[in-house]
Amino acid sequence: MRMSELSSRSGVAVPTIKFYLREGLLPAGERLHPNQSSYTDAHVERLRLVRALGDVGGLPIAAIVAVLAAVDDPEMPLAWKFWIAQRAISRSLLEPVELSGRTTPPVEATSPDAVVAGPGREAVEKLRTELGWTVDDNNPGRAMAVTVLDAYAQLGHEELFTVLPEYARAALIVAGADLDTVALQSAAPSMAEVVVVGTVLGDGLFAGLRRMAQEHVSRVRY
Amino acid sequence: MRMSELSSRSGVAVPTIKFYLREGLLPAGERLHPNQSSYTDAHVERLRLVRALGDVGGLPIAAIVAVLAAVDDPEMPLAWKFWIAQRAISRSLLEPVELSGRTTPPVEATSPDAVVAGPGREAVEKLRTELGWTVDDNNPGRAMAVTVLDAYAQLGHEELFTVLPEYARAALIVAGADLDTVALQSAAPSMAEVVVVGTVLGDGLFAGLRRMAQEHVSRVRY
Repeated sequence: MRMSELSSRSGVAVPTIKFYLREGLLPAGERLHPNQSSYTDAHVERLRLVRALGDVGGLPIAAIVAVLAAVDDPEMPLAWKFWIAQRAISRSLLEPVELSGRTTPPVEATSPDAVVAGPGREAVEKLRTELGWTVDDNNPGRAMAVTVLDAYAQLGHEELFTVLPEYARAALIVAGADLDTVALQSAAPSMAEVVVVGTVLGDGLFAGLRRMAQEHVSRVRY
Repeated sequence: MRMSELSSRSGVAVPTIKFYLREGLLPAGERLHPNQSSYTDAHVERLRLVRALGDVGGLPIAAIVAVLAAVDDPEMPLAWKFWIAQRAISRSLLEPVELSGRTTPPVEATSPDAVVAGPGREAVEKLRTELGWTVDDNNPGRAMAVTVLDAYAQLGHEELFTVLPEYARAALIVAGADLDTVALQSAAPSMAEVVVVGTVLGDGLFAGLRRMAQEHVSRVRY
């Protein structure tokens, strides 16, 4: 199909498609003439995946490139793909976002790898021990949880520490559901896609349900 | 205190503080000379709150301004503050992020208010009925959940729909914990701050714990 049909079928505007081609998010089509290429259904699907990761998952371009490379690699073990998806979305959450259309402030760099000693690390370690979770020190989620708890403590608040076990109980339910979605797949490529997309989009789904549940619980209680 | 001390006590660089002052995220200090102002402990606390919302919570400047106005308003009912915090973080998740240091693609606008008919809305309505959740149609989380599920369906995947009840069960646990943190507060201002900060940071905490739990569950299962 031509670029115009690719645009109408994927719902992505032509200038955006050209941008994705330049950035390597979309493989080039088969060149018919110097100014014309032909695209396939695989391009439509890839475009939908890029939009889901970017618009809905909120990943920056560089993270999408890394995640797609993981999806595409037939030799990469599934555990690695999980890891790459986790890191991509953890970074996008932890690293300061460049501000659009403004003079950006010089932000101090924070690395998700730097898990420094403090109330956050202490609380997460205690949790890990008490629940008997087998989790590597380098798990990207560990750095995220520690960073959030430290930020919270810095604000002079302690409440999130109090409810940490409840959060962990809920996280275990969601993680079990996540692994169920992977087990539903039979083919390795779709398994990889579910790992990556589910990790990115699952955060958004849970955040949405959390807000709905907050309203419900506050109506019931007050 | 002087700007330099404000910087060292808050851990925020002087150029960043000046940027926040210009953008109205930080109230001006008391002017001592044309080129010198004096700042208080309240400025240190406000700076920490801004950094937590921006760096850790990932909110863009405009959302931080809206959220801080809600925190500061002594007359605004608590339910409204919840709402504003929810909308701020929902928007930052749903709206395409401007890409840093690149030619940005022309992105089609998506509104979190537009909950269109489709598999996502159908699944969320079914869930709401089955669980008996009292949630307004305009709840920002409803739009988030619907958007994510529709994006997932568009990719040709159905697995997130299958595990939706498990996600909802976990969301109810977290929402209960969230309301507990609010109930722990005695003063109205700190209650408002907990609502706002807890809503923003709670997503990050849960996302971190979810990744830890994913690793644990996959190690146990495989």
